[in-house]
Amino acid sequence: MALAPLIAAALERQALAVRDEDVLLVCQKIVSKSEGRFVDLDAIEVSSRARELASRCGKDPRLVEIILQESTEVVRCAPQVLIVRHRLGLVMANAGVDQSNVPDSESRVLLLPEDPDGSARRLRASLAGLLGAAPAVVITDTFGRPWRQGVCGTAIGAAGIVTLLDRRGEYDRFGRQLKVTQTPVADQLACAATLLMGEGAEGRPAVLARGVPAAWRHESARAADLLRPIAEDLFR
Amino acid sequence: MALAPLIAAALERQALAVRDEDVLLVCQKIVSKSEGRFVDLDAIEVSSRARELASRCGKDPRLVEIILQESTEVVRCAPQVLIVRHRLGLVMANAGVDQSNVPDSESRVLLLPEDPDGSARRLRASLAGLLGAAPAVVITDTFGRPWRQGVCGTAIGAAGIVTLLDRRGEYDRFGRQLKVTQTPVADQLACAATLLMGEGAEGRPAVLARGVPAAWRHESARAADLLRPIAEDLFR
Repeated sequence: MALAPLIAAALERQALAVRDEDVLLVCQKIVSKSEGRFVDLDAIEVSSRARELASRCGKDPRLVEIILQESTEVVRCAPQVLIVRHRLGLVMANAGVDQSNVPDSESRVLLLPEDPDGSARRLRASLAGLLGAAPAVVITDTFGRPWRQGVCGTAIGAAGIVTLLDRRGEYDRFGRQLKVTQTPVADQLACAATLLMGEGAEGRPAVLARGVPAAWRHESARAADLLRPIAEDLFR
Repeated sequence: MALAPLIAAALERQALAVRDEDVLLVCQKIVSKSEGRFVDLDAIEVSSRARELASRCGKDPRLVEIILQESTEVVRCAPQVLIVRHRLGLVMANAGVDQSNVPDSESRVLLLPEDPDGSARRLRASLAGLLGAAPAVVITDTFGRPWRQGVCGTAIGAAGIVTLLDRRGEYDRFGRQLKVTQTPVADQLACAATLLMGEGAEGRPAVLARGVPAAWRHESARAADLLRPIAEDLFR
């Protein structure tokens, strides 16, 4: 099912006139659903590696097989925990393979979009055709963190907005140069949107952000820019 | 210098009538400054451990000594990186010891508040006396992340608002029970506020959040509730 007409209709029902300078944040789940990223658990052939990992983390071996197929590396495996590097470069639990808010989740699961930055670009272009304005688009998911509880909004796809704002070289109020300050704009917008979306039965899968600085508009930024290079990963 | 009167005056200048149900997010830096958490670098005696770590990470040995004094454990040391567990339990770079937006940063640095949850409670009580309303208070800092670029808003102190909302046991739209969903409300509010504060020369150290659900008010929540227990830390 095409997503842009559903979003355009929802905006119209709420009498929201979208502008180019707005940012539409859309949860990964509805993007994946619209792209038909379902996998039937019964169709999965479980490898011996998946069986071994499944016994260590206590998850369904078929689910673990799918997670491995989506991943390039297992980062941590522990009881109830399987953290991997997704083939998109995202370090995350279960490779983003999802069973919540998925119909028939006993028999099938939902994968991340094949190319979330591409999904964001396509959604933005479709919305522009329907709305006459091209808001930036961010596709959000929620990720756990190693040392803190809870899952935070995270940008896995983006179009039309800077994802990581590099402020190194600017000066603070006392003339000291900023040495490390890079602001993950899209991730922090995703956090704000996640609070509004909720993660249970709210059925509120998209949020419109308004008042975003014009300087954050960016035609070629990608959510992939938020990934720390593997060479700088101290926690493999 | 007392912080509450400065914030009350700033709110008044902007004709913002604060309500009990608002959340005031305040950056750590102005809280630490108001509590006089400066340390003179020249007064520091450098231990041999600090000297050895400083040579590995390429930082000022006096700064490393202060970081060690603020910490219970070194998590990672690499060129230009020193990640520790702060005595408050926060895993963070440089134990939060700060030189940006600190006057005379060549000769002194700024520590985190001694007890940020207590600072939040005291600021909330002082504001209530001045404003006639007691908004929740969140003290924000920015933390790096292992696998993603940039620093994200993080709640290090809180009063009057739930920090971690536990939704496990609720149901999704298809009747499946939520098994892991805990929402780090205060951290995600801190992310939104950090985008508005900026981290350079903006001079915008406080943000008022409005429209927060009444269910998130909580009289005894603490930012410390966001810490993952050490026994569950897979990345020491």
